[in-house]
Amino acid sequence: MKINPKLLSLAKRSKEASRKTAMLSDEIKKRALKAASKALVEFDAKILAANAKDMALAKKKKYPASYLDRLFLDAGRVEAMARALEEIAAQKDPVGEVVEEWNSKDGIKIKRVRSPLGVIGMIYESRPNVTVEAAALCLKAGNSVILRGGSESLNSNKALADIFSAAIASQGVPADAVLLIENTERKNIYDLAGLDEWVDLIIARGSEEMVNDIQKRATVPVLGHGKGVCHVFVDKSAALVMAEDIVLNAKTQRPGVCNAMETLLVHSGIAKGFLPAVGIRLAKAGVALRGDDASRKLIPGIQKATEKDWPAEYLDLILAVKVVDSVDQAVDHINRYGSGHTDTIVTEDASSAERFLKGVDSAAVFHNLSTRMHDGGVFGLGAEIGISTAKLHARGTTGARELTTTKYIAEGTGQIRK
Amino acid sequence: MKINPKLLSLAKRSKEASRKTAMLSDEIKKRALKAASKALVEFDAKILAANAKDMALAKKKKYPASYLDRLFLDAGRVEAMARALEEIAAQKDPVGEVVEEWNSKDGIKIKRVRSPLGVIGMIYESRPNVTVEAAALCLKAGNSVILRGGSESLNSNKALADIFSAAIASQGVPADAVLLIENTERKNIYDLAGLDEWVDLIIARGSEEMVNDIQKRATVPVLGHGKGVCHVFVDKSAALVMAEDIVLNAKTQRPGVCNAMETLLVHSGIAKGFLPAVGIRLAKAGVALRGDDASRKLIPGIQKATEKDWPAEYLDLILAVKVVDSVDQAVDHINRYGSGHTDTIVTEDASSAERFLKGVDSAAVFHNLSTRMHDGGVFGLGAEIGISTAKLHARGTTGARELTTTKYIAEGTGQIRK
Repeated sequence: MKINPKLLSLAKRSKEASRKTAMLSDEIKKRALKAASKALVEFDAKILAANAKDMALAKKKKYPASYLDRLFLDAGRVEAMARALEEIAAQKDPVGEVVEEWNSKDGIKIKRVRSPLGVIGMIYESRPNVTVEAAALCLKAGNSVILRGGSESLNSNKALADIFSAAIASQGVPADAVLLIENTERKNIYDLAGLDEWVDLIIARGSEEMVNDIQKRATVPVLGHGKGVCHVFVDKSAALVMAEDIVLNAKTQRPGVCNAMETLLVHSGIAKGFLPAVGIRLAKAGVALRGDDASRKLIPGIQKATEKDWPAEYLDLILAVKVVDSVDQAVDHINRYGSGHTDTIVTEDASSAERFLKGVDSAAVFHNLSTRMHDGGVFGLGAEIGISTAKLHARGTTGARELTTTKYIAEGTGQIRK
Repeated sequence: MKINPKLLSLAKRSKEASRKTAMLSDEIKKRALKAASKALVEFDAKILAANAKDMALAKKKKYPASYLDRLFLDAGRVEAMARALEEIAAQKDPVGEVVEEWNSKDGIKIKRVRSPLGVIGMIYESRPNVTVEAAALCLKAGNSVILRGGSESLNSNKALADIFSAAIASQGVPADAVLLIENTERKNIYDLAGLDEWVDLIIARGSEEMVNDIQKRATVPVLGHGKGVCHVFVDKSAALVMAEDIVLNAKTQRPGVCNAMETLLVHSGIAKGFLPAVGIRLAKAGVALRGDDASRKLIPGIQKATEKDWPAEYLDLILAVKVVDSVDQAVDHINRYGSGHTDTIVTEDASSAERFLKGVDSAAVFHNLSTRMHDGGVFGLGAEIGISTAKLHARGTTGARELTTTKYIAEGTGQIRK
């Protein structure tokens, strides 16, 4: 397959820039991010004009309202981006952090030190704020980034990347540290994911189909931010009011995102006291339920769940419901049908909680918390580049730290191998 | 492509076993590894008989002496394997280790905890001790493992895996935690690397060609333990005797391994005082030199290096030599031609050392040490599953800890997303 020569030259420029970004002091990176933050507000008219073009095209193509809402920018949303950049600037620099340090028995001083990955390819869809936040997190970690957003937000992304690039360049960061692929043919994504000589990591954030497609073709390692089939398990000794609030929040607060609940598991010992009441509240909130036989006896009139419902990521006001007989059954169901994203147990019983937290093999396992709380901001980690369901390198909410690697630095006095 | 049904059933058994190994206490894992250690010594006649078959076949095929040496087992080598298992048993259990712990501002108690990866596919060549050490490290980290060794060591590997499996089963570990693929067709490797539903990680340890081939086809993430184009840079303020000893050790102590030196870089300010002398010692040790113009003036009669020599991994008594004018030139050469494995500066100048250690983008960067010292044992980390040149997840010497992932465990009191 012939690589697009323009893309190749972009990748080479990015690699060149990454050698310089790797050596930047935290002070310069801070100044650059603050300058970018200011520039967004200063040039917001340019951003909003570009966004208006994208919106007009998207409306013409009759995209749904939820889609248009994600694409849309106004002065408030631009300010929110500017604030995110300030927050990232204020975070601790991960580069140079000594992860561990010890002396070998031969007297060698060994350290494991965080260092930048190099060039990051960021592939994402729709929301233009990702352009700015991804660029900022990559720079914070000493990397250069090649951005490839969706075609429908190209004008917005281009305006944002131009402003960001010029602002960091004014502070001594190479302008090539942030490059945007403007050609939105899909082949360009595949080409990018195959440039293992130049690109060190691909981050793919979008639909499951998109992430899988890239993962299959890539020779560059891919961090996929994919499917969220999240569960809430209401144990027999749950505090029922808390359980109701968590279930309602996890399903309805923002149903279209990856950390929203898709399946509710309820212990048979408490199902009679819990399901009818929560069923009414969910129905009032507009949620359509699909239940197994046991739950349909307690919430009459709901649709019967089929085998297809258990692994489904609805991203909508739909909820699968199942009654289980034990914590272990809940754990087995989640490990079998879940996507390893975020799963919660609601219980007042410490030993049930422990069994669940140990047994569920997911990026985040919660006790008495809404699945929606799996978020870099809520965790206090600052902006996140996504939530990884991969098990290697970065699992769960992913910030600047996960955009680094480590290297061993060892200092000796002439030791040789015997 | 149709997956071999036998392989698929093996993978499913391994997945099933991994759910149990994940929950094992350190106590049981320790007992199992000690039992395996004892069993190797007890049944060494069986192992040596199997190895004799492999050796006879390999001799018939006229494999070179270095190859036969790697394949060969005697009672001493079996005892060394048994000792390695004791050491791994004694290591700290990585599973359950709390990597970090904090409270969010909403009062959520958040921990990041090490947990097993699941099923590991281990693809390797020739040396039979890898069978036992890989199985032990995977088990220590709470994983199950599917082993796929080279066809030439099949009898030895089978004997070792059988003894290991039976011994751990006697201590309550599922026998399926360690499975060996006996079919040595290459297609089986590709199939294994495509079973992303069942296998969580592939470790590929062997020739560069083998690792690249797997990486290209895999949908399971691959940790490649590949090419080592290691450098020693002798700075202008190097202690010359130390530099000579390091160069000799790095090139000749064991030239066929990944952490042996392949290129020697010498600062022009010291080349006249260093190269003629070290050239004589290297020649005496049987090393053939290939130099750039500047070094050929100082070591007459050596072959001229071409562009092909700089990225070459000779794995033999051959050494490329080049004179550079600064630390920065050395760093640039290494980042351009090296493989990101292990690179050393020899210098008495702290600021040169710092510049080199920061600038070289490799898994390990050394100051006044032989490249051969990049080793889990030397570092005090115990047995290693290999040295990773990947930047993601595991970089450098890789032990049981890198065979885990982390998960977030968060405990709340009913917090929901506002």
